[in-house]
Amino acid sequence: MTYCVALRLDRGLVFMSDTRTNAGLDNISTYRKMFTWAEPGECVVTIMTAGNLATTQSVVSLIDERMKAPGDRTPSILGLNSMYQVAHLIGQTLREVIAEAVPTGQEASNKFNASIIVGGQVKGSDPRLFLIYPEGNFVEAGADTPYFQIGETKYGRPILVRAFDPDMTFEAAVKLLMVSFDSTIKANLSVGLPLDLQTYERDSLAAPTQRRIEADDPNYAAISENWGDKLKDAFDSLPDVTLD
Amino acid sequence: MTYCVALRLDRGLVFMSDTRTNAGLDNISTYRKMFTWAEPGECVVTIMTAGNLATTQSVVSLIDERMKAPGDRTPSILGLNSMYQVAHLIGQTLREVIAEAVPTGQEASNKFNASIIVGGQVKGSDPRLFLIYPEGNFVEAGADTPYFQIGETKYGRPILVRAFDPDMTFEAAVKLLMVSFDSTIKANLSVGLPLDLQTYERDSLAAPTQRRIEADDPNYAAISENWGDKLKDAFDSLPDVTLD
Repeated sequence: MTYCVALRLDRGLVFMSDTRTNAGLDNISTYRKMFTWAEPGECVVTIMTAGNLATTQSVVSLIDERMKAPGDRTPSILGLNSMYQVAHLIGQTLREVIAEAVPTGQEASNKFNASIIVGGQVKGSDPRLFLIYPEGNFVEAGADTPYFQIGETKYGRPILVRAFDPDMTFEAAVKLLMVSFDSTIKANLSVGLPLDLQTYERDSLAAPTQRRIEADDPNYAAISENWGDKLKDAFDSLPDVTLD
Repeated sequence: MTYCVALRLDRGLVFMSDTRTNAGLDNISTYRKMFTWAEPGECVVTIMTAGNLATTQSVVSLIDERMKAPGDRTPSILGLNSMYQVAHLIGQTLREVIAEAVPTGQEASNKFNASIIVGGQVKGSDPRLFLIYPEGNFVEAGADTPYFQIGETKYGRPILVRAFDPDMTFEAAVKLLMVSFDSTIKANLSVGLPLDLQTYERDSLAAPTQRRIEADDPNYAAISENWGDKLKDAFDSLPDVTLD
């Protein structure tokens, strides 16, 4: 499994992904699930992937190759005019890869499936965030649904629902994601450290620094150690229940 | 879907279940999922069910019938010498019902599956708590795993992991379950109010009062309204994250 979250804040985009992949419980590996392409001053695109690793690696390789081979018939994702076109192209690529793996039959609910979160900015437009389904179609984050999760989404959802605020700083957003990831990692073996993190500042139009958060990261360790106590304090401070 | 939790406390057992059943999103009903049988002074058994409704209703009906028809060849669950035997008999009944619905093939991972939590006490022994799988076998709650969840378990798990304490009062346990259920209900349409609640006091050997918690229950409303704020306060009080 996997856990990835992207937030759409007023000041930009924040991405966090875990790095664990598993085939069963006894075949666990570490793979990056966050990838970025940028043409400084023009366009920045970050994606995070969940699902079949062969599928998602193919999609990333295809995006990469098409950018490096200028004569290729398919346009590079950095040569497009809007993030909508970027999401559409990645969606088509995902659909092609899945269709190639499953020549016949329905594409939905097969084992080659994958989902992708795409976020970024093209010069002259706002930063945008999309969730691409295995069928290649996609939805966009807006004011009502300002974040996307893929993978093992349930454990870490309640805190996002309660504490997300589009006005929050990058520091607060990273703290929120750390709590959401910590709750998930503590409950589910298929999501694991290290984590990858990117914060993209609106209108910077440059590839954001990608940070890797290891288990001994002082920020993460402080959040992880404190959250249990804080949660217990919050619980204890709730009004008492009376049973008659 | 469904959500049921049972806690094994020092002072007894606590059970909570929701009442929503659904076949797809457009066929939603309210059914009780908590059932109790008692022979005062001798034996008390409470079960909670998740999974295929036809299966779980059959199991409950069979348990009922066998108790009312004294000449039946299968023993009543109230005539047994230990909770282990009770769990074994209910497990066998569950297995029979599933096998009847699926005459051939594997019993695991079919649509007639169900899981059952069984808790109670037989005179002369401690209260015990079991989780019965569709195959009819079962595991018991102990000091290391002092609670069981069935159904839509993920949203409500982090707070159980962090705040459960075997020494807690019934009032605190009910508060904990209300938080766990509220987190689940807010995130998932397939779990819904009203909730059923029972607290069984160790050695009372009498059927506990079954309470129904409706949406306007003052205790539940207070927990539900306050938890969002408390959680946000807990989050805000975490140490700051520094991004360099």
